[in-house]
Amino acid sequence: MSKQQGPVVDLGDLCATRVTREPLTEEQADDLASAFKALGDPVRLRLLSLIASHADGEACVCDLTGAFELSAPTISHHLKVLRESGLVESERRGTWIYYRVRPEALRSLSESLMPVAGVPA
Amino acid sequence: MSKQQGPVVDLGDLCATRVTREPLTEEQADDLASAFKALGDPVRLRLLSLIASHADGEACVCDLTGAFELSAPTISHHLKVLRESGLVESERRGTWIYYRVRPEALRSLSESLMPVAGVPA
Repeated sequence: MSKQQGPVVDLGDLCATRVTREPLTEEQADDLASAFKALGDPVRLRLLSLIASHADGEACVCDLTGAFELSAPTISHHLKVLRESGLVESERRGTWIYYRVRPEALRSLSESLMPVAGVPA
Repeated sequence: MSKQQGPVVDLGDLCATRVTREPLTEEQADDLASAFKALGDPVRLRLLSLIASHADGEACVCDLTGAFELSAPTISHHLKVLRESGLVESERRGTWIYYRVRPEALRSLSESLMPVAGVPA
């Protein structure tokens, strides 16, 4: 196994960040917005659900490209956005890169909306 | 009270939509992505938390512009994006438009991420 490619933004830092009933600071809003922006694209959302629905929650680029009428470089670009936003992580094994969803990051995002949604944090 | 300005996208339709371990359809991904895209901007996230943090969960444009070094038309544009995405609703009373968060829409979005985040739906 080679070195794991980690996220550029670590959403772990956002664990305590909520779109709360207290106004967000500019910095909190910047961090959260960057993660929501990564989710704000249908191809990236479908990639995320495809990765999560794969056996062992892990998918190779070769498993993903067939589901889209898009070029491999376009798929790779979207995977890079997801990785840099901390929503997936990747690992190179042999000639392929394997992607896996980061559940803790998605949980942080989901929970960040709860106070505004009227759900106790 | 004048007629309420409703959302263009009704996120109520997304109640059953999850970024699940079953791959999303293109249509489901389009609807969800449009809402996440609306959240993918720090000004809009701060507007959302400012509105929710106001007394009665309701805020007038006049309450919001002071928090930003942005022009009133720019703030209005962001409020329009939030409204068209179904995340806030607005109501004109007299000369002012009042905004209110739509908790059910934010709850749908928050819940849409739970299966991928490893939280049972």
